[in-house]
Amino acid sequence: MQKPWEGRFREKTQEFVEKFTQSVSFDKRLALEDIEQSLAHVKTLLRAKVLSQEEADTLKKALEEIKQDLQRGNFQLREELEDVHMNIEAELTRRIGELGGKLHTARSRNDQVATDERLYIKREIKECIRHLKDMRRELIRLAENSLEIVVPAYTHLQRAQPIRLSHYFLAYREMFLSDELRFVDAYRKVDALPLGSGAVAGVDFPLDRFFTAEELGFRTLVRNSIYATADRDYILDTLYACATVGTHLSRMAEDLILWSTEEFGFVELPDRLCTGSSIMPQKKNPDILELIRGKTGRLYGNLISLFTVLKGLPMAYNRDLQEDKEPLFDSLDTVKACIKGMTLVLEGMSVRAERMMPQLGDPMVATDLANYLVNKGLPFREAHRTVGNLIAYLISEGKSLKDLNLKDLKEFSSLFEEDALKLLDPKWVADRRKTYGGTAKEELLRQIEIAKREEGI
Amino acid sequence: MQKPWEGRFREKTQEFVEKFTQSVSFDKRLALEDIEQSLAHVKTLLRAKVLSQEEADTLKKALEEIKQDLQRGNFQLREELEDVHMNIEAELTRRIGELGGKLHTARSRNDQVATDERLYIKREIKECIRHLKDMRRELIRLAENSLEIVVPAYTHLQRAQPIRLSHYFLAYREMFLSDELRFVDAYRKVDALPLGSGAVAGVDFPLDRFFTAEELGFRTLVRNSIYATADRDYILDTLYACATVGTHLSRMAEDLILWSTEEFGFVELPDRLCTGSSIMPQKKNPDILELIRGKTGRLYGNLISLFTVLKGLPMAYNRDLQEDKEPLFDSLDTVKACIKGMTLVLEGMSVRAERMMPQLGDPMVATDLANYLVNKGLPFREAHRTVGNLIAYLISEGKSLKDLNLKDLKEFSSLFEEDALKLLDPKWVADRRKTYGGTAKEELLRQIEIAKREEGI
Amino acid sequence: MQKPWEGRFREKTQEFVEKFTQSVSFDKRLALEDIEQSLAHVKTLLRAKVLSQEEADTLKKALEEIKQDLQRGNFQLREELEDVHMNIEAELTRRIGELGGKLHTARSRNDQVATDERLYIKREIKECIRHLKDMRRELIRLAENSLEIVVPAYTHLQRAQPIRLSHYFLAYREMFLSDELRFVDAYRKVDALPLGSGAVAGVDFPLDRFFTAEELGFRTLVRNSIYATADRDYILDTLYACATVGTHLSRMAEDLILWSTEEFGFVELPDRLCTGSSIMPQKKNPDILELIRGKTGRLYGNLISLFTVLKGLPMAYNRDLQEDKEPLFDSLDTVKACIKGMTLVLEGMSVRAERMMPQLGDPMVATDLANYLVNKGLPFREAHRTVGNLIAYLISEGKSLKDLNLKDLKEFSSLFEEDALKLLDPKWVADRRKTYGGTAKEELLRQIEIAKREEGI
Amino acid sequence: MQKPWEGRFREKTQEFVEKFTQSVSFDKRLALEDIEQSLAHVKTLLRAKVLSQEEADTLKKALEEIKQDLQRGNFQLREELEDVHMNIEAELTRRIGELGGKLHTARSRNDQVATDERLYIKREIKECIRHLKDMRRELIRLAENSLEIVVPAYTHLQRAQPIRLSHYFLAYREMFLSDELRFVDAYRKVDALPLGSGAVAGVDFPLDRFFTAEELGFRTLVRNSIYATADRDYILDTLYACATVGTHLSRMAEDLILWSTEEFGFVELPDRLCTGSSIMPQKKNPDILELIRGKTGRLYGNLISLFTVLKGLPMAYNRDLQEDKEPLFDSLDTVKACIKGMTLVLEGMSVRAERMMPQLGDPMVATDLANYLVNKGLPFREAHRTVGNLIAYLISEGKSLKDLNLKDLKEFSSLFEEDALKLLDPKWVADRRKTYGGTAKEELLRQIEIAKREEGI
Repeated sequence: MQKPWEGRFREKTQEFVEKFTQSVSFDKRLALEDIEQSLAHVKTLLRAKVLSQEEADTLKKALEEIKQDLQRGNFQLREELEDVHMNIEAELTRRIGELGGKLHTARSRNDQVATDERLYIKREIKECIRHLKDMRRELIRLAENSLEIVVPAYTHLQRAQPIRLSHYFLAYREMFLSDELRFVDAYRKVDALPLGSGAVAGVDFPLDRFFTAEELGFRTLVRNSIYATADRDYILDTLYACATVGTHLSRMAEDLILWSTEEFGFVELPDRLCTGSSIMPQKKNPDILELIRGKTGRLYGNLISLFTVLKGLPMAYNRDLQEDKEPLFDSLDTVKACIKGMTLVLEGMSVRAERMMPQLGDPMVATDLANYLVNKGLPFREAHRTVGNLIAYLISEGKSLKDLNLKDLKEFSSLFEEDALKLLDPKWVADRRKTYGGTAKEELLRQIEIAKREEGI
Repeated sequence: MQKPWEGRFREKTQEFVEKFTQSVSFDKRLALEDIEQSLAHVKTLLRAKVLSQEEADTLKKALEEIKQDLQRGNFQLREELEDVHMNIEAELTRRIGELGGKLHTARSRNDQVATDERLYIKREIKECIRHLKDMRRELIRLAENSLEIVVPAYTHLQRAQPIRLSHYFLAYREMFLSDELRFVDAYRKVDALPLGSGAVAGVDFPLDRFFTAEELGFRTLVRNSIYATADRDYILDTLYACATVGTHLSRMAEDLILWSTEEFGFVELPDRLCTGSSIMPQKKNPDILELIRGKTGRLYGNLISLFTVLKGLPMAYNRDLQEDKEPLFDSLDTVKACIKGMTLVLEGMSVRAERMMPQLGDPMVATDLANYLVNKGLPFREAHRTVGNLIAYLISEGKSLKDLNLKDLKEFSSLFEEDALKLLDPKWVADRRKTYGGTAKEELLRQIEIAKREEGI
Repeated sequence: MQKPWEGRFREKTQEFVEKFTQSVSFDKRLALEDIEQSLAHVKTLLRAKVLSQEEADTLKKALEEIKQDLQRGNFQLREELEDVHMNIEAELTRRIGELGGKLHTARSRNDQVATDERLYIKREIKECIRHLKDMRRELIRLAENSLEIVVPAYTHLQRAQPIRLSHYFLAYREMFLSDELRFVDAYRKVDALPLGSGAVAGVDFPLDRFFTAEELGFRTLVRNSIYATADRDYILDTLYACATVGTHLSRMAEDLILWSTEEFGFVELPDRLCTGSSIMPQKKNPDILELIRGKTGRLYGNLISLFTVLKGLPMAYNRDLQEDKEPLFDSLDTVKACIKGMTLVLEGMSVRAERMMPQLGDPMVATDLANYLVNKGLPFREAHRTVGNLIAYLISEGKSLKDLNLKDLKEFSSLFEEDALKLLDPKWVADRRKTYGGTAKEELLRQIEIAKREEGI
Repeated sequence: MQKPWEGRFREKTQEFVEKFTQSVSFDKRLALEDIEQSLAHVKTLLRAKVLSQEEADTLKKALEEIKQDLQRGNFQLREELEDVHMNIEAELTRRIGELGGKLHTARSRNDQVATDERLYIKREIKECIRHLKDMRRELIRLAENSLEIVVPAYTHLQRAQPIRLSHYFLAYREMFLSDELRFVDAYRKVDALPLGSGAVAGVDFPLDRFFTAEELGFRTLVRNSIYATADRDYILDTLYACATVGTHLSRMAEDLILWSTEEFGFVELPDRLCTGSSIMPQKKNPDILELIRGKTGRLYGNLISLFTVLKGLPMAYNRDLQEDKEPLFDSLDTVKACIKGMTLVLEGMSVRAERMMPQLGDPMVATDLANYLVNKGLPFREAHRTVGNLIAYLISEGKSLKDLNLKDLKEFSSLFEEDALKLLDPKWVADRRKTYGGTAKEELLRQIEIAKREEGI
């Protein structure tokens, strides 16, 4: 098989080198994008009078046939042809003869691969955003359904203050909304056409790059031809967005794994989403959540991988950049699968309200007792200390708040009155947090309303 | 010294724990932001009628005095007071008595620290953007001054095609322009107020959070109080933006270090920016560029550091989050210093045009010889092979392109005519690349014009 | 202030460059090592007849005085002198005149700094190993004290099989024993002397490097002078060992944080090791464990930081290498503090045996019921399925294993006999796992014995 | 298809979950190790009288047949069977009926997979060590052949001191020797048998774990059954060793890429190891070196990936651990291929001695001029300054050292005598560095001798 560049070479490429440098085993995923760009390139070459109308028609027809064969699985790419670009070009030449060789006019693999990647990422980011939206809708549904369930909010994994469960789900929704923003930021940067930059210096044929951009649906051009071929920032941005989604998923997975333990017992996953043990017959494991949590590893790894590749790399294109693709594909696949898996969990899990509900007089109401005293005029620090002493007393006596009557309370502060006892009810207490974004029922209803409007529900 | 939370505790904190958990040794950098936010909090508490006008006035006056003492270096923070927030509150109480303790009403350190950090980052991002702009202006100046210098563009660190030197500087400008976009993206997300979220569940005093946001210059609110206190995405975004700047700086530093070698000899750094060797008297080293390149390490490290902290962290605030500050401060300091250092290098270095200029007949013109044949009707692949053979011949004969006459050329392809010889001039060849973003002089002039307009020069 | 290398320079170093390139603000931590090495260098130079006996005596005396001043805090290092080496040399010259300048003969900062670092690391690794040993002893003490406490072993954070609590502590001991091995591996590589390599090429004075190595307590030499000055692997190895300790600490911290929750309630931390909330009077948080877990971030970050610095760095010494010190110091400090903090937790925490003990008939005994059937001749897979069906039945009926009598069991398999009922007792079941390293009491006693012998208890 | 654990489940596993949690698509690489361990497990079960001799024989025969089918590619593993272990067990049962189900007695996938992995890594580490040795031998061959070539040693990528080229190759040999040590360290830790630990708590059959270890060639046991199943340190150690090799390869690749530039021109790669450009006919690119350098990214990424997975993971086995395999396989494959590729480069490249040799009077001899003065009695710092001034004078006059005669030298220091002029010869100067590990010819000959002895050449 001839190499496209063998003219100046006097030795055949060593087989090991062929294998070591080939990229077709993974860049074949860009085959459809490569044809899409070639179709646009044909039009641009026609406009630039590099191709005649007839040549353009022949190329277009052949490219579309190859595309169909690809989609039907009838076209196998070969490693000895290096990469997806050369595979398609070789096939084209096999089908229509030397005219196939004209397609590479005014184009280098350096600008070609960057264009393929950007087309690919644009489509994939849209997919990620769609998956995120599905998951957020599920979170809103859960928020709506769990308004009446009061649960502990944790800080330091210690029970902190009573909240309505909806509040949790809305918090996660905010996280995953911010992930959408990150994808949108990445998209805006990836949405620029490098084609027409040639190998590094631009092209000496009169290509109308703006026309090509429009044909391929790019918002703008990558202006500088050196930057266009040396840059992989658009992949960094994508990998970063994926890593951040992974962080958030790992946090929610951690919460749900905890909640699925026998000790917490807050939620139950359906059998169809769990797997068992090969040796312990009683086991039902939340593997799907553990894997989602664990896959954060590869998302971070992929980001560091590309950062490392780029560190200290001189201008412009260097072959090191070929190492950008596998992390890219892996992170996008991983993120989509993990979001989907998590959405299934959210759909399938049942909430065990009875296990979650804190009891009357749960120490979590302590903040409100302190604030009660503040409202009676005590400086906050003094009030905090007073209630702290009360809690310490209960611990040492093995008592609960609900064992106390007004007289007991008064021993700690004479400011306590009858109405303080209402504060022993966690639900009552939750509803006192009426600030914007707080956990009071009326506020949550408002936030759910906003969320639904934003998601178009 | 009393702890603000010691009410329920029956043992003094162990000294090691005090030291291990304190953050004041680094979060003291947030002291001014902490006072700024407290001043706004006073106004909000006044509005909510938690404070009287007189109390608010007293607090305001005392806070401003502490601020002045801080700025003058008259106020020393102490480790046993845990963090910057408690240091300032303690000082306030020392000065105005128990009213100081009222300031923490309706506020937790969980929403307080997030607010401080966001105020800090907003200011710092603006600084980074300003530094980037200064560097880009320097790059534009260099681009303007180096239009007539033709140099090799490298791919694979091999000479690829002749370009005008301006083109390089404009390429770097694009990189550092994209960095500004990343900072802007981060800024837009950081620009939301968490205050009013309390410890996790919101606040049970009628705070007008929108009012506070306006007071503090935030565009919007962090809506959900759980997310507001559990989230550190705004720091991730900042660390990511810094890491990407670092990547770009390391690439440009690598180029300039190469160009400063005796072997390349393309640029010369002034003595004032170099250091010498303690043992080799002849040495003059580009240490500043090496350090800029090396500092990429800490920028990546800081990002991975926070990502690791967040991985698998349950909701909501956990003390692990205290580990966010040192990487944040370090990355921002590093990026600002590195950009400034690089700007000095760009200002100070001299370009050695005579070393850079490729000679007549440099093999870099090969692409244009091939394209010449394409324009005569040869398919590109055939033309490529023809010129490849020509190059191989020259290598084996130890000859240069400029040793050839038309007759010699015709032995490789009869399509070569007299005008092909013009293509042996690298400058002529460079000017053939007229596509948008290409290296032709007219195109570079246009790009410089655009760049100057964008930078307001 | 004169630079040691200013001879060939015609401009004063720019102030920014001085600040940017100085390392004394952090390499001052190597001051004692630097003097230690200089004392040995004096002896070597004397032996090589580069110094006279009198000169050597004068240098030795002055160096020892500076050392004392350093230890007493009477010697302040200055940034404009670049680094610790030049600070000490300058001070030496200030005290004894131009003889001070002789000390740098046959030595470059390139081999000097590597020698300082290796001396420093050797001492610090020993400290880390000592701290690890203290913690492991604490784990053995806990293992001895908790032999009679039966607890769930978790897989997938679901209750898996009953074990004796000692088993957990011994598992952690194994982890932290492997960390010692990693430090020992690192030590063996760091324990080689680079001094005598000069700037890169070796030294043109007849130094006896083996003599110097013996003086400084190095096992061997770094042989090749290029490698000796270009290499930072010994720091990578140290940072890696620290990162692995961090991983293990984060895992144990996670377990203990879980165990400290109200929901698990397995252990209780003493008040002296906890901190409270500035707003919630009831809170008692395991901050120390959270910080230990969180500090994994910086340990990973530091490792990636140096890996990034080294990636693609040409031979030999480059100034990028100066970026090795801050991660090194930070990781060693962090690891020592975290191990110490964790040891305090292990010493101070109380185990709540009554909360941990599983009840009679806990589903964790299911494996043993299956194995019972295996021993009666059923293939394991069949036995597993049988007990799985039994568990499913119990769940659907809301029953517990202990509600069943032999007749009930027989409905699932006629192989069940009276003795099967003994398997409902988790302690009995635990003691059946008698394999080497298993959880049976007799086996744990043996493992504790081995552990004590290994730790010299 | 039945799941081995479906007894207690009342729903079929959802298809997405099956796909998401399956590992057979990658853990199939452990198939031979899985059979190897099963063969040993059969023997152990026989010894423990869990299997009869006849059963053991039947199992052994069937396992060996499956092994052969695997090796011949006649056995396809299926995703719906989850993992390699269940695939082989299912096939076994298909072939020999319910006896196949007996094989899993006294074994869990938790100890099984750790055993497979350790067997796999042991074999692979040996391969890596073998590849490293081949490369080091090539470096020694180069060192022998390049003794007479004097070249610049670089620091800060500036010419520092003249050395013999052999010295460079020996430096790299030291680096790659240290990599072998790291693999040996990893090997020593991986060489311990986890089998017999069961799911977490040990096994309730009387297995002789020492017997199994001997059968499988393990030096020792992983003692604690919890640690044995929860631990992945042996993979961390392997990934770390790989990452360090990658660092070293990236450094050598960087040097060779620089040396292959037209500007340096120190080495030339053969055509068979290079590839060309799809557009620039003159290009011959060192892609293989660039890819080796770039692949450092994935080696760092894989390490961070597993570190992330392990961070904060509670005891004992969690499904997150399944994420250990892909990074492991990828790093081992990458390292082996990169070492092999680099070895080809070392074998194939030609050294262009004429381009490397520094000229008479190259400023690199400056250190020796200074040391000359030291030997005449001048303190080193004074000597350094004197020669620095001399260099500055040459620069400002545009002169070279070789333009100077003794009289000129004396203007800078009257200590210069006739013999100083010999120091203008770089080769002479190189041979002055006779310290152990220095660049003098006699010393390099000694080091080559040592190296050959160590490598058994």
